Amino acid sequence: MPPPPPEGLRLYPPPCERVPEIYGDISLPDRNPRDGDLPFVFLNAVGTLDGGAAISGKAGKIGGSADREVMRVLRSQADAVLVGAGTLRAERMSLGSEGRRSPEPLAIIITSTGDVPLENLLDPAPERTVVLLPGSSTAGRAGSISGKARTIPLPPDPSGKIELRTALLALRERLGVSRVLIEGGPKLFGEAISRGLAGELFLTVAPKISMEPQDRFRRIVEPSGAPPGPIRCTLISVHYSEEELFLRYSL
Amino acid sequence: MPPPPPEGLRLYPPPCERVPEIYGDISLPDRNPRDGDLPFVFLNAVGTLDGGAAISGKAGKIGGSADREVMRVLRSQADAVLVGAGTLRAERMSLGSEGRRSPEPLAIIITSTGDVPLENLLDPAPERTVVLLPGSSTAGRAGSISGKARTIPLPPDPSGKIELRTALLALRERLGVSRVLIEGGPKLFGEAISRGLAGELFLTVAPKISMEPQDRFRRIVEPSGAPPGPIRCTLISVHYSEEELFLRYSL
Repeated sequence: MPPPPPEGLRLYPPPCERVPEIYGDISLPDRNPRDGDLPFVFLNAVGTLDGGAAISGKAGKIGGSADREVMRVLRSQADAVLVGAGTLRAERMSLGSEGRRSPEPLAIIITSTGDVPLENLLDPAPERTVVLLPGSSTAGRAGSISGKARTIPLPPDPSGKIELRTALLALRERLGVSRVLIEGGPKLFGEAISRGLAGELFLTVAPKISMEPQDRFRRIVEPSGAPPGPIRCTLISVHYSEEELFLRYSL
Repeated sequence: MPPPPPEGLRLYPPPCERVPEIYGDISLPDRNPRDGDLPFVFLNAVGTLDGGAAISGKAGKIGGSADREVMRVLRSQADAVLVGAGTLRAERMSLGSEGRRSPEPLAIIITSTGDVPLENLLDPAPERTVVLLPGSSTAGRAGSISGKARTIPLPPDPSGKIELRTALLALRERLGVSRVLIEGGPKLFGEAISRGLAGELFLTVAPKISMEPQDRFRRIVEPSGAPPGPIRCTLISVHYSEEELFLRYSL
């Protein structure tokens, strides 16, 4: 049985009112408005109030129960939930909606090396887990994936990395995916934002600050170097639940 | 004449309502509630929505006009506005309330080296500018300050740095300061928070994301290494004006 919905207070836009489920009523497009060949992409991140992406090295220590429930609601809006392999290496995690969506969204992991610790998936489901990896990946590494996930080899860029745009096109064309939720890490967020591939950012601001040096350089978004100048976003809504703020921006 | 007040929408706590001036009606204590020998300290920071403390290397490029007006309102609540010398080196800035408070708050710069570019102060006022520097600073460097500010030499810690607590005690005992607003930089914020010296944090969240690599490691708060585990904060209020969110937390 899924956990109870994250009841909350919508603060913005006015009027302020209680909502039975934060983001339970949102309606997202099913294509990138700038490029109809691509699925609609939205990002979900949690940060400390000073923009940190980790406490004791782990993103999972930032958010509380309201954040975790919002995360599941957002997953239920997606056909596929995408993370970088580094994010999965950092900690054990689920990529499912815990019954809020049927069928559950696809769990997509993108990797440049084939080093994907699928044992860190708390809700392993070989039939809906997909690893996107460079066509050049060694069969040996891909072998550690077999039986636990489907693999889709894709052409890498000259540096050996799969560009996010290439991955999104493949998800649309080969798996029929219309809406992709990206949950990190910071490099993938940076690429999605700077390349105009993401339509919205959902950001949870937790009332915490980490003082640990190991968390110092763990930012929510890692700058990708392009374009110059700041990306301007538009605030869509603000919700509040259990001391956490839930900000929704269009990009 | 001061600029118009930052009219805004108070989002939290309910009821949501228009306010003629964000933070115009707040009332702050005049002592550190944990240690009555110390002045009350509050922090004001502006960040990109992903927690960045700079755009193109400068904090001044993050906030808009609403943020700048809120900054002046907060300064009008302080007897002294304190920054680290590095913050003043990074960009030209004012430390005054532009007429919102009379007399204007003291402008305090803390330095470990005596290297303080007072020419970066947009509102130079030798009679209310104070440089706190180690007793060991060379007369030559302090010479560049003479005529532009009063200097107060203080005993440094073994590393040659003036501890923030030492500085705050001196401000109270020698200048009669009851409320200190710290505006940065990240190390000073980290020290104030981790040592329990700050009572509140005012944080402006601007609807921007920087993609510039030079901004990558510019966080709002730099972890000081102690204590372990996250600092938990309590949300006091949320305001909105011109796409910016103004968050107030007690620490």
